[in-house]
Order: sequence, then C-alpha cells, then structure tokens
Amino acid sequence: MTNEIVTFGEAMIRLSPPGHLRIEQTDHFEIQVGGAELNTAVGLAQLGCRVSWISRLPQNALGRLLAGKVRQTGVATDQLLFADNERLGVFFLEHGASPRPSAIVYDRVNSACANVQPGMIDWKHCFARASWYHVSGITAAISTSASAVVTESLKAAKTAGLKVSFDPNYRSKLWSHDAAKKWYRDNIEYLDILITSPEDAERYFDVAEADPERQLQALSKKYKLQTVAFTFRQGASILRETYSAKICHLGAIYASREYAIETVDRIGAGDAFAAGLIDGLLAGDPQHAVDYGAAMGALKHTIPGDFVFTTRAEIEELVQGGTLRVKR
Amino acid sequence: MTNEIVTFGEAMIRLSPPGHLRIEQTDHFEIQVGGAELNTAVGLAQLGCRVSWISRLPQNALGRLLAGKVRQTGVATDQLLFADNERLGVFFLEHGASPRPSAIVYDRVNSACANVQPGMIDWKHCFARASWYHVSGITAAISTSASAVVTESLKAAKTAGLKVSFDPNYRSKLWSHDAAKKWYRDNIEYLDILITSPEDAERYFDVAEADPERQLQALSKKYKLQTVAFTFRQGASILRETYSAKICHLGAIYASREYAIETVDRIGAGDAFAAGLIDGLLAGDPQHAVDYGAAMGALKHTIPGDFVFTTRAEIEELVQGGTLRVKR
Amino acid sequence: MTNEIVTFGEAMIRLSPPGHLRIEQTDHFEIQVGGAELNTAVGLAQLGCRVSWISRLPQNALGRLLAGKVRQTGVATDQLLFADNERLGVFFLEHGASPRPSAIVYDRVNSACANVQPGMIDWKHCFARASWYHVSGITAAISTSASAVVTESLKAAKTAGLKVSFDPNYRSKLWSHDAAKKWYRDNIEYLDILITSPEDAERYFDVAEADPERQLQALSKKYKLQTVAFTFRQGASILRETYSAKICHLGAIYASREYAIETVDRIGAGDAFAAGLIDGLLAGDPQHAVDYGAAMGALKHTIPGDFVFTTRAEIEELVQGGTLRVKR
Amino acid sequence: MTNEIVTFGEAMIRLSPPGHLRIEQTDHFEIQVGGAELNTAVGLAQLGCRVSWISRLPQNALGRLLAGKVRQTGVATDQLLFADNERLGVFFLEHGASPRPSAIVYDRVNSACANVQPGMIDWKHCFARASWYHVSGITAAISTSASAVVTESLKAAKTAGLKVSFDPNYRSKLWSHDAAKKWYRDNIEYLDILITSPEDAERYFDVAEADPERQLQALSKKYKLQTVAFTFRQGASILRETYSAKICHLGAIYASREYAIETVDRIGAGDAFAAGLIDGLLAGDPQHAVDYGAAMGALKHTIPGDFVFTTRAEIEELVQGGTLRVKR
Amino acid sequence: MTNEIVTFGEAMIRLSPPGHLRIEQTDHFEIQVGGAELNTAVGLAQLGCRVSWISRLPQNALGRLLAGKVRQTGVATDQLLFADNERLGVFFLEHGASPRPSAIVYDRVNSACANVQPGMIDWKHCFARASWYHVSGITAAISTSASAVVTESLKAAKTAGLKVSFDPNYRSKLWSHDAAKKWYRDNIEYLDILITSPEDAERYFDVAEADPERQLQALSKKYKLQTVAFTFRQGASILRETYSAKICHLGAIYASREYAIETVDRIGAGDAFAAGLIDGLLAGDPQHAVDYGAAMGALKHTIPGDFVFTTRAEIEELVQGGTLRVKR
Amino acid sequence: MTNEIVTFGEAMIRLSPPGHLRIEQTDHFEIQVGGAELNTAVGLAQLGCRVSWISRLPQNALGRLLAGKVRQTGVATDQLLFADNERLGVFFLEHGASPRPSAIVYDRVNSACANVQPGMIDWKHCFARASWYHVSGITAAISTSASAVVTESLKAAKTAGLKVSFDPNYRSKLWSHDAAKKWYRDNIEYLDILITSPEDAERYFDVAEADPERQLQALSKKYKLQTVAFTFRQGASILRETYSAKICHLGAIYASREYAIETVDRIGAGDAFAAGLIDGLLAGDPQHAVDYGAAMGALKHTIPGDFVFTTRAEIEELVQGGTLRVKR
Repeated sequence: MTNEIVTFGEAMIRLSPPGHLRIEQTDHFEIQVGGAELNTAVGLAQLGCRVSWISRLPQNALGRLLAGKVRQTGVATDQLLFADNERLGVFFLEHGASPRPSAIVYDRVNSACANVQPGMIDWKHCFARASWYHVSGITAAISTSASAVVTESLKAAKTAGLKVSFDPNYRSKLWSHDAAKKWYRDNIEYLDILITSPEDAERYFDVAEADPERQLQALSKKYKLQTVAFTFRQGASILRETYSAKICHLGAIYASREYAIETVDRIGAGDAFAAGLIDGLLAGDPQHAVDYGAAMGALKHTIPGDFVFTTRAEIEELVQGGTLRVKR
Repeated sequence: MTNEIVTFGEAMIRLSPPGHLRIEQTDHFEIQVGGAELNTAVGLAQLGCRVSWISRLPQNALGRLLAGKVRQTGVATDQLLFADNERLGVFFLEHGASPRPSAIVYDRVNSACANVQPGMIDWKHCFARASWYHVSGITAAISTSASAVVTESLKAAKTAGLKVSFDPNYRSKLWSHDAAKKWYRDNIEYLDILITSPEDAERYFDVAEADPERQLQALSKKYKLQTVAFTFRQGASILRETYSAKICHLGAIYASREYAIETVDRIGAGDAFAAGLIDGLLAGDPQHAVDYGAAMGALKHTIPGDFVFTTRAEIEELVQGGTLRVKR
Repeated sequence: MTNEIVTFGEAMIRLSPPGHLRIEQTDHFEIQVGGAELNTAVGLAQLGCRVSWISRLPQNALGRLLAGKVRQTGVATDQLLFADNERLGVFFLEHGASPRPSAIVYDRVNSACANVQPGMIDWKHCFARASWYHVSGITAAISTSASAVVTESLKAAKTAGLKVSFDPNYRSKLWSHDAAKKWYRDNIEYLDILITSPEDAERYFDVAEADPERQLQALSKKYKLQTVAFTFRQGASILRETYSAKICHLGAIYASREYAIETVDRIGAGDAFAAGLIDGLLAGDPQHAVDYGAAMGALKHTIPGDFVFTTRAEIEELVQGGTLRVKR
Repeated sequence: MTNEIVTFGEAMIRLSPPGHLRIEQTDHFEIQVGGAELNTAVGLAQLGCRVSWISRLPQNALGRLLAGKVRQTGVATDQLLFADNERLGVFFLEHGASPRPSAIVYDRVNSACANVQPGMIDWKHCFARASWYHVSGITAAISTSASAVVTESLKAAKTAGLKVSFDPNYRSKLWSHDAAKKWYRDNIEYLDILITSPEDAERYFDVAEADPERQLQALSKKYKLQTVAFTFRQGASILRETYSAKICHLGAIYASREYAIETVDRIGAGDAFAAGLIDGLLAGDPQHAVDYGAAMGALKHTIPGDFVFTTRAEIEELVQGGTLRVKR
Repeated sequence: MTNEIVTFGEAMIRLSPPGHLRIEQTDHFEIQVGGAELNTAVGLAQLGCRVSWISRLPQNALGRLLAGKVRQTGVATDQLLFADNERLGVFFLEHGASPRPSAIVYDRVNSACANVQPGMIDWKHCFARASWYHVSGITAAISTSASAVVTESLKAAKTAGLKVSFDPNYRSKLWSHDAAKKWYRDNIEYLDILITSPEDAERYFDVAEADPERQLQALSKKYKLQTVAFTFRQGASILRETYSAKICHLGAIYASREYAIETVDRIGAGDAFAAGLIDGLLAGDPQHAVDYGAAMGALKHTIPGDFVFTTRAEIEELVQGGTLRVKR
Repeated sequence: MTNEIVTFGEAMIRLSPPGHLRIEQTDHFEIQVGGAELNTAVGLAQLGCRVSWISRLPQNALGRLLAGKVRQTGVATDQLLFADNERLGVFFLEHGASPRPSAIVYDRVNSACANVQPGMIDWKHCFARASWYHVSGITAAISTSASAVVTESLKAAKTAGLKVSFDPNYRSKLWSHDAAKKWYRDNIEYLDILITSPEDAERYFDVAEADPERQLQALSKKYKLQTVAFTFRQGASILRETYSAKICHLGAIYASREYAIETVDRIGAGDAFAAGLIDGLLAGDPQHAVDYGAAMGALKHTIPGDFVFTTRAEIEELVQGGTLRVKR
C-alpha cells in the first residue's frame, strides 16, 4: 500500500470565549484543536483518504485530549511522539464582527513540538506506505530545530519519491520576513505543489503580475512547480465575503466557482483548501483539485473549530452547485 | 362553544447541536419540539385562539416532555392518545450558513403517531366544539394507517360542518411524488383552504401559470377552493432573504407586505403562516389573513425552535410596518 | 490630582435569554450589568482614564455582584452608597433579528438608586479630585428625588469648576415628553457638552435644520454649549448598519469615518461614544474626540453586554482604518 | 364535575447560579418557577388530579413565561388574572453545602400578586367545580390586601362546602411572629387540614407536647381539625438527611416510612408533601395520604426546581419500598 | 501479530439531562456513547491494548458521530459495517439521587445493529490478528438475527483459537428470563471466562451457594470455565457505596481491595471491570486481573459517560492503595 | 494610613472541565483565577480589609482577564507590573470523587511572574501604607529570580516594620525537598507568623511531637515565631471530611470549632484560612484569628474556584455555630 498522505506540524489546544465575547469577559472557553498541517490531514480523512499526522505531544492529559480529538476525525496517530515534562501550545481566539477583527493570543513557545530535534523522527519509516507529503511554513518557523526537521523531512520525502505540497503560511509573530523568505527559497527545490496568494507570491517569491493567472504561470515556471494555487476573498465585512480559487497545473489554468460565504469560523479555511487540492491531484484531475479545494475552503467558514467536518458526497454537491434549502 | 380549531398530526423531539456545530462535533443537543400541524396550533394559541392538537404519544418520559412543551404554549392536549411500549419520533437538525444548507436527519419510523389506526380517534367527539380543522400532507405520508386516518378525519370534519385547511408539505423522504399526488387529488374534495407554492401547484395540482396571481385564481377555480395561499422567498443566502405572501380568496387577490429577514431558524415558518391565515379567515377578513400569515411566517424566522412565540399585539405591529429599534 | 472623571446614575442587572431565544422560551438568563453613566465610565476606564461611578445599591448579594462587575472594569467604586432592605433594578433584554426588534422589559421601580434623596451624596467630596462630570437624562427620570439630586449635582459640579457633559437619553416609559423637555431646559445652563441626535435636537431643544452640521452649530450657539455631538445610523436591518458621528466644538465641525457594523449587541453604543468623546475633549483635541467617540460606539456593537471592553491601542487602530483580517 | 382542587397564591421567577456558585460569582442564572401553593398544585397535577391555580401576574413576557411553565405541568391557568404595568416577584437562590446553608434573596415587594385586592377574584366562579381548596400563610403575609383576600377566599370556600387545607409556612422576612400568630388564630375556624411542625405547633398554636403523636392529637382536638400533619427531618448535613411524616386523622395516628435523602434541591419539599396528603385525603385513605405525602416530599429533594416532576406509578413504587438500582 | 482483542455488540447514543434534571424538565441533552462490549473495548484501549470493536451503524451523521467518539478512545473501527437507511439506537438516562433511582428509556428497536444478519460479518477476517474475543448477552438479546450472529461469532472464535469472555448482562426489557437462560446454556460451551453475580449464577446457571467463593468454584467446575468473576456492591444509597471483586481462576480464588465510592455515573462499571480482568488474564496474572478489574470498575463510577477514561499508571496507583489528596 | 495588607505571588488562569469530567472528555473549560497569596488577599478583601496584591502579568487579553477578576473581589491592583511578550501561567484542574483524587496539570514555566527579577519591584513604595506582608513558599519555588525577589521582599518588610506571615506550601513539582528546606530555614528569621501542618513541621522545620499543641509550642519557641498555625482534616473520602484549626500565639493555644464539610472545591482552603488568621491577628485577638481562619477555610470548600466569596457577617455566623437551614 503506498497511497497514504503524511503531514507534519504542530497542533495546539484552541480556547475561545463563546459567541462574540471578548477574552476579558468570559467565564469559560470552548475547546477546539488545530494546526495547519493537522487541519489539512483532517480534511483528507473526511474525504476518506488514508492520512497520518506526525507531531510531538506532552505525555499528559492535554496531550491525550489532543490526540483523541485527532483520532476522532479518522487521522492516523501512530507516528505521534509523546514526551515527558513538556508542554502543549495553546492559542486563545476571540471571534470578531465588523469592524472588530477576530484576534488570537498565542502561547506556544517551548511546546513539545517546537522542541523536536533532527533525528527524532524516523522519516523512512513514516513514509514507508506514503505517496504524498504535506507541510507548511509554520512548522519551519516555530523553532530553529523544527526548521531543521522540516528540511530533513523534505529531503527524505524526495528520496522516498513522494509528491510534496507546501503552504508558506507566513506568520509575522514567529519569524521575520527575511528569515522566512530565505527559508522558503532554500527549500523550494523540494516542492512540487505550492499554495499561496498573489501578495505572497510577490513578497516571498519575487513574482509579480497584475493578472493572477499569469502570476500563477510565472511562479510555476520560475520554480519548476507542478502545481501552484491561489485562493481569493472579496468583501468588506467580517461575516460575509466571497471565496474562490485558481490553480496552474502543468502550465494550464483551472478555476473554481465562487462561493458566497456567511462566516461562522474562518480559521482553517486555507488548510481545508489544501485537503481538497491534494485529493484532486492524487486523483490526477486538476479541475477536481481546484473544485474540491474551493468547496472545502468555502465550507470550512461555516463550521466552528479548525477542522472541516464533511463527507465526499457533501463536497461533490457543493461543487455541482448545491442548494441553500433545508435538506430534508 | 363552537369556535375551537382542531389540528392533527405527528410531533417529534427535535435535537440540534448548539449554534452552527455539526452533529459529528457536538457534545450536547438543544431540545425543541415540532410538527407541522402542532406548529400551526401553537401559532393560533399565541394569538389567543382556542386550539387543540390531536396526536398519539408514547406513555413515557419523552411523551410527557413533549406534551408538557405543547401545553406550555396554550394548545389543548386533552385529546392526546398515550400508548405503552411505543416510541416518539426524533429529528436531528443542523443549522447551516451559506454555502452549507441546514440539514435534517429523521428518525421517525414506527413512531406512536405513525402507528395510529382508523377508529382509534373519536372524531365526532374531537370536533364537537370545533369550527375549523387543519392538517398537512405529512401526516398522510408517515404510514399507510395514518394516511387512512387523515382521510377519515377529513370526512368527519366535512360531516361536522367544519372548514378544512390543508398544506401538502411534500416530503420526498416519506413518499414518492406519484403516491403523494394521488393522495392529494383523492382528498382535495374535502378541502376549503389550500396552502402551497407556485412550484407545487404545478407539480401536484397541474395548474401552471407564469403569473402567481393568475395561478392562485386558476387553482382556486379548478378545485373549487375558497382560499388558496402562496408564500414567496427571495435571496441567495441562508441567513438573509425576503418573505411575503399572496392569497386568492373567493376569486380576489390579497397581498402582504414584504419582509426583509435575518434568519435565526426558519423551520416552522410555513406552519406559522398557516396560523395567521386561519386567524384572519376565522375573522372573515382575507386581508387580515394574508397580513397575519406573512407576519407570523416572517417572525418565525427570528425565533429558535419550531414554534412562533408571539402575541397578537406584536403581529399587529409588524403588519402596521413595525420598527427595528430596540423597544424600551 | 484633579484629573478624575465622575459619573452618576442607576445601574441594573441585565438578564437576557441566550442567543435569539424569547423570554417565554428560555431556561436561563445571561447576566450583564449596565446603566448609561456607568457604561460611559467603563469606556473611560478601558482607555486608562481615572473614573469614578456614584450610585446607590442594595446591601445584599445582588449589590455585591453589581459592584464587583464594575470594579472588574477598573471604574472606582469608593463613592458607592449601600442601603439595607432596598432592591436593585433589573431589566430583561431579548435580542432581535429583522423584522423582530430587540425588546426590553424593565423592572426598576423603587430601586435603591431611584430612592436616592438630596443631601445623601457629598458632592463636594466626590468632586474633590475631579475635572469632569458626566450624567444622563435617565437619572433625572427615574424618580422625583433622583431628579432633584441630578440638579444638585450639576450645581455642585459648576461650583467645583468641572466640565459637565450630558446625554438626554429620553425614555418614554420613565417620563412624559413635556416633563423631560422642561427638565432639560431648566438644567441646560449647567452643561458644557451635549450629546444628542437631530431628531431630539428639534423635539426637546427646538432647533431644527435640514443639514445636521448647521443644526449642531445652531444648537451650540443657542445654548452656549462648548460641544454638541450627533451620532448617525443608516441601514434597514437589525444586524447590519453603518455608524458615524459629527460634533460642533467651539463653532467648528469635526466628523468621524463611517463604520460598517455587524451588530452583536447595540446596547450601550451611545454611552461608549460619550466615553471616547470625553477622552478627546479632556485631551483638548476635538478631532480625537469625534474619532474616539465613533470608534468606541462602533466597536460596542460587536461586544456582548452593555460595556465596551477594549484598549486605547485597539481604538487607535480603528480610527486609523483598521483591518478586518484575523489578528495573528 | 366537582372534583377539582383550587389553590391560590403568589408565584415567582426563581433565579439560581448553576451548581454551587455564589451570586457574586455567576455569569448566568438558571430559571425555575415556584410558589408554595403553585408547587402543591403541580404535585397534584403530576398525580393526574384536576387542579387550578389562581394568582395575579403582569401582562408581559415574564408573566407569560411563568404562566407557560405552570401550564406545562398540567395545572389549569384559566383563572389567572393579568395586570398591566405590574411586576413579577423574583427570588434569587444560592445552593449551599455544609457548612454553608442555601440562601435566598427575595425581590417580591409590590408584585402583581401582592397588589391583589378583595373583590378582584370571583371565588364563587373559581370554586364552582371544586371540592378542595389549599392555601398557605405566605399569601396572607405578602401584603395587607392579599391577607384580606385570603380570608375572603376561606369564607367563600366554606360557603361552597369545600375542604380547606392550610400550611402556615411562617416567613420572618414577610411579617412578625405576632402578626402571623394573630392571623393564623383568626382564620383557623375555616380550616379542615393543617400542615405544620412540632416547633410551629407550639410557637403559633400553643400546643406543646414532648411526643409528636400526642402533639398532633392535641392540636387536632383543640382546633377541631380533621387532619393535622407533621414532617420530620434528621441529619446534621445539608446534602444528606432523613425524611418522614406523621398525621393525625380523625384522632388516629398514621406514619410513613422514613427516607434516606441525598438532596439536590430541597425547596418545595413541604409543598410536595401537601400534594400527596391531599391526594390521599381526597381518596378517603389517611394511610395513603401520609405515604404519598412523605414519598412526594422525599422525592422532591432529588429534583431541581420547586416542582416535583413525577408520576403516580413512581410514587406508588416509593411507597412500596422502591429500589436504588438503575431502572433499565 | 496475534495480540488483538475483538469485541462485538450494539452501541447507542446516550442522551441525559444535565445534573439531576428529569427528562420532562430539560432543555438540552448531554451526549455520550455507550454499549456493553464497546465500553469494555474502550477500557482496554485506555490501558494501551490493541482492541477492535465490531458493530453495524447507519451511514449518516449519527453513525459518524458515534464512530468518531469510538476512534477518539483508541479503539479500532476498521471492522465497522455502515448501512444506508437504518437507524442508530438511542437511550435516555436520568441521573437519580436517593431515594430516586437513575432511570433509562430505551429507543433501540430496529437499530442497524439489531438488523445484523448471519453472514454479514467476516469473522475469519476479524479474528485474523486476535487472541481474545469478548461479547455480552445484550447483543444476543436485541434481535433474533443478532442472537444468531453471536452464536456464529462464538463458534468462529473457538475455531480461530481465541479465548472467549462473556458477561450475560441480563436485561428484562429485551427478552424473557427463560429465553435468556436457554441461550446462555446453549452457548456456554464456547466460553472460557464468565463475568456475573451471585444472584445471576443461581438464576441462570443453577449454581447456588451461601458463600460467594464456593459459588465461584462450583460455577467454574460445573461449566469447565477457566475463570469466573463476581463483583460486589454494598451500601443503601445511590451516590455512595463500596465496590470489590473476586474471581476463581483455575480453581483458585483471588480478591481485590474494597473501594469506597462516591458515584458520579455508574453506567459502564461492569464493562470497565471486564476490561481490567481481560488485561490481567492476557498477562497471565489472575491477581492483576481481579485488581485491575476492580480498580477500573471503581474508577468508572467517578467518570461521566459510559467510558472509563484512564491510564495504566492511574489504575496501578489505585491498586497500590492510591491517595485522595489533590495531585499537584 | 498604615493598615494595608500586602501580598506577593504568582496567579494563574485555572481551567477545569465542568462537573467531574476528565480533561480528555471535555469540550469546554470553566475559567477561574487563583494563586496562593492572591487567594489570601481575596479573603481579606471579602472581610473588608484594605489589601493589595503584587505580581507580574503579561500585557495582553489574558493579563487583563486576570487583573479584572482580581479587581472584582476588591483587591487593589495598583502595584501590578505588566510586561510585553510574556506569558501567563495556566493550570488545568480535574475534580475527583472517591476513589479518584482531583488532579492538576501545571503549565506555569516561564510565566511573567516567574521571570520577575530583583530590583523590579519598588518594595519601599509598595509597603508605604502597609502594616502586614503575606507570602508563600510557592513564590520562592517558581524560579531562581523569584526566590531572590521573595527574600528581597522579606528584608524590605522587616525594614519597614511590617508583620510577616508565611505559608511554606511545599510543591514537589517545583523544587526538591532539600532546596525548599534550605530556603525556608534561610528565611525564617524574617517571619512572625508561620502557617503549616504537623507533617511539614517535622519534615522542613525538624520539630516533631506526638501532640499537635506541643508541636505548635515547640515550633514557635524554636524559631521565635509570634504565631504558628495548623489546620486539620479528617475523613476517608474526597467529598466529605471535617476541618478545624489550632494556633499557638505568644505561647498559648487557641482552637476553633470543627466543621463537617461537603466539599465542592477545596482548592484555596488553606489560603482562605490565612486570610481569617491575619484578620484576627490584625485585630489583636488570637481566638478571633483561629475562629475566622477555620471558618473561612471551611467555607471555601463549598465555593467553586480558588476564591472565598463571603462577607464578615457570614463568617461571624459560622463562628457562632451557624445553621444548615435555608436562609429565607
């Protein structure tokens, strides 16, 4: 069996006041679990793919809480490392409404995952049954050692003959623009698929074009990437916008339909997009890839938490045009 | 006293995850109670009408829960049948947001109400103090025996000299298009008032017109109906739309104002419309009927659950144009 | 130290069904605390100002609950009076959605604060360290004795050399149009700053102009007011509107930007506006005043409860144009 | 039909912090409804008796909330009076644990019910179908006018030939020992059944005996009462005690079994006792009366809220000895 | 690898009012998942064993909810069957307090699992990596076809050389005493381990002894069972009792310590006991078996839901004597 | 004014699953705030004392949440230090029931308070209006720098002429037995009041006696302490025990009454004891000190969270013997 997808990265406990309460006001936190690569793995598991998530967790009740929430979604946790006397990263999320943006307070320094060291993970073993590897730039940003582990993993993935997809996911609180850019450029040789935006394409990859389709093509050409993907948002409000995607695959452009979105929780939309994209590329169908990517990204906005709970049938229905009437 | 309204049909426990959570994610269900005819009865009770609901419930804590929630609204429960060792239907409702529609999982097969048999209900007694009978096509669809009981009730209502209102409420999960159409046509002779939509008028009653007003008139003429009512929705989003109604009464057309809706829970809007309509027709005022129908249907969208909690004064205010400012 | 702001007025426990439930439906009430002048004090405390709130509370667990919620925000409670065997006012708030307006049921008659009597409060002591006094017309409306105490406080404030700001906040359930108008006119001589609306400027202060800027100027001139402020709302829906403000300060007009609002809870928006306005006027900067006023009023719509939980940095960011993206 | 039981008295909204939180700490209140006579009516309705509760409520959402919760239990609300611009009494209940007793803050002054006046209630009409009348001393204590209305009702009940049961329920916050004693003595001539305790029998009725059985007999003889009932509690803890009852009926003593209680909510236990007692006396069976009284009082301790939700079958099982195993 | 434990049986969604509310009172249900064999599987997974649960679920959101909650605990769900247009069993649980026992309303008729048919499950495949099979009498009782499937599974297990453990778990609502007894006796030849009680040993297996140890030995001898286990409860209250166990293994008696229990939720205690017992027998250590069984059963009483969330370290600590002090 | 009490130490956000849920199971955390010295400060504020708490918090929403919860109780927060880019300690608390002890997972390493450095706090300024200083051994254990700051504070307190009270509060997860013992012995010269237990008196202070009263006297004599206090618990269950205290003051022994406790939340009981003790010693009344200490410690067990919400009147009533009946 060589069809598994492997992802690697940090996940955190996410704590949110209910509804639109501010952190200063609340008496309880709702618990979710999330992390860029994990969120993508969950999206793939919802589609019925075999997918595994690699990370490092503390050996305590919080680590067990997180691992349980991951297993619940169908993502395999056999490759998780558990460590004594370490901590789990936490982030606090406040839900906004116009004109107040949603806001996050991170408390992730020195997490068990940030403390991962080169050599700790047996990549050869992890990739034994896999055909795809997905990782994001966040994992490279959380610590120097994690950054080295990501590079280690990329090399191992290429050696093992896997396709590699990557989302830079730049976070200014984790590293500087320059450090990020350098890392992206140093590692781009290992990548097959890049998921980014027109702005970041210019900022980190020095590819600027007024037209996004041309920009996709230029980016793909410059770095010899099989597939490059952009997602697009429109709308001047927090709770309502539109969402769509375009990709360049082997030089050709494919576009999704545009979704009108009533946002419940937009965290994880990009990660859900990646799941749909990978599913389509694994199927060898770039139109399916951009369609599923956009449908899963759009759907994610309507679901509380970082994870996109869904089924393949539901995504297929959205791609086909869907309905807004009560399903009964 | 002969002014009571009688309704008959199944009601279920409705279980929903809070907010926009999906069923797969939730740790608790919010409980509501609903059923098409019951919802209409509740609307009438809120307006101060004397109204009774007939159904069959299990003799256990769930049946008591449901009966209590009904009594709370002011609907009379004296005619309820309680049965040992039977079950109560349940439905699970997930609240959507664009582009994800709300979705329902039904678990209503073999409910105590579906197991009702002809002869079980003493219709003569039930109709003794009544002047109006309301039922929907759902009750006819839940089982063969229930279907026979509805026909039994329609005959008894005509014998007793009651006005009869009917909402076909087609549910594809309960019966086929053909079975439904045959039943509607077999029973239309007993009806005075029909509540439906332009699409269903064509689909089940073979009356097609480009203009809804003409369609209402044609429908009314073809089947010798005193009153025919249509409701209209506009808008390409789950949480925002417009809502209005038109009726044909004794050949003349009456129209409501159009409401801009911010939807909290649209289940039961059609049933609330029926309540306002019946209230106006009982008062012999077709403009009141379409106005109250539309106001109650519009208001229902803003209230969690299947029931339209309101007062006559509030409906009157909406009909008069209302205000959107805080009432204080 | 003479930089403290003093406010005076009633605060109540506010009880709301969760979400959009109606009072008839709910099984629990969410607790907030609010009152016009208190809300303004809270806004000022959030900006880091030294501010004190004067009121009269019952000496029981409810009084302690309220005082604790006030202290939590940073407002000083040293001047509070506690009284045995008195009651705390309560209001019940139901959250609406179009076309159903939010609605309030007041239960505030004979509250400890309404029973305040002239002479009970040592104004000289209260104003000893203060440079500003803010009060609203609600306090004058809750009882005859409270009305007298407000006049007493206005005289004392002028004697002590404080700036005085006032929001008429007309409530038809508390007094008649004529009684209110008379009181406003009798006391306007003590005021420096007036916060009102174009409609009320005409209704209570007999200043009508088609153009709001001219109306502001006329109002300011007629009553020799240093500053007059109007806020503006646009939009025919309960959950979405726009919000902005204009002031006339020493004859010149200053305007804020206009905010698109997705409303979570609009109670207290006017009071939050007053806080931003006072902060700017204390700083001697009328543009800052109208900017902070509008930003705090706009922000308040997104926060559950009567209080505007925020920081000076957040308000500054909104004034500068802000972002709607997740802050992370 | 002359078998209805009529009760009369005030009911309040009861607001409690969840679990064992103190009022100062809580962010929401759980809502229950209660009042001594209403609680007894609810107990009787649970047993399947026809029972009506008379009171006076405000014509607003809170009045509707309360009336709905009453109807839910099966108690008839046809005789309720609704009044404009009045208030509903509220009490705040904090749940204790040893050594902290549960505590109540009342806010019931000037409630719509306390403002009831002689002549407002048509007792002849209310008693037309009734054979029993139950009232408590609380109703006599809430206001001078309510006190007069209770006497009015007692006279009307005797005229109409009803049995009358009474629970003095002395509340020191509502009236003085002397005022209560005088009222009890002035009205005892109208009573058939008295529900009290050994301590109160001595304190208010001047009947002291070391042995409770003798005391019951002496009390019954002195005031010519058909039935006198005592309930007994043992145990030095808030959450665990024992509960039992004895009555003297036509001179003979009847005793219940003793229940070991794990208390969830003891409010309303005495009122539930009264319901069981009345049920048995209506059946002409004094052993049934004391057994059902004790079983319903014991059961009430395990049910949150003031009401004893149960069935006749469950009470019968408790009387027979019951089981503590899971029923499945 | 041949070390897996396989279990087979129905699981249901469990819905409970919060705290001690009765079903008639509640506005929401807390969701748990449970079923006798599943609960045992969960206990084994918590100890780190490899364990798989076989069942049949509907292919809908409820089936996904249940499967997710199972995966979360670490139990393998690869062998689950999903069926279209079927239903999931539900049970409603009310938590009691003395003298009110906890009570369950079942709604499990015609569940997807009850509709399992012989031949549907590929036992050979299921048992391929297994060394132990556990099932309970409930599965044999839910339908005629399920009963046949259990027998089918027992034969397959013996053929595959697995140890078989069985808990009769008699449920009077599912089948008669005689039917159960016949089934137990017809199938006892396939069993190695029997978990029961002194009462049931007499009632269903015709082995009566005054002394439990002798009874264990007689039972074991009569039916040639490797191991027979009894658990013991003492105490006349719902929330407090003691708990201990004894087993006869290859003729010798082993006893656990006795635990004082403060019960939070006793559902699933017997199933947790089975997990500890199997763990110890797999380790070949009968003292470990009875110790872990009793510790897991005792611990289960303190955990809400049907599942025993724990770790091997925690169980080991309880067996060693444990502490009641806060662990910090 | 020199009557203020000053405390210094770390406080954390405390996150607990509701009821008795385990961390692995929960979907939300209830938020409380706590820390040994803060808890004592809160107790003193509840009694009406002027008390200030010194700590170091992150300058973010979590720091504001914590500071707000402190101000709410009446404790002064003027001396708090806020630091950019630091974190707040968190602890996760699971509530146990016999035989499962409550358990805590700490995540407090590198908190803003642990990062406090000598010289950061202006002790002279902090102590300017104070007569008492209270600190615990936890603060000395959280980091090397914090340990130095505590010694710095003790010296400053003695220089300023304050009484100093100290609770060693040994935590094995924070430092070793030897390190703690050395620190206690190095700093004991600065202490006037020591709050400990018979076990710790022997373990850390080398004073062993079979009789606790003699042990108190020996301890007091050996280290020249004005007052030494012990609290006592009895009972082999998590939810029920007894609680009492004894102190040696200037050589004489004073004892409290013994309380039967039904535990809701025992965290913070020792800190509440310290508050009562300090209150009495400030009043110069050692019997009051031990009585209030024991009453506040006992009461704390019944209140969720780390803080003892109460009033002086309530404590006085408990000391006088109290009642277990509902207060109404």
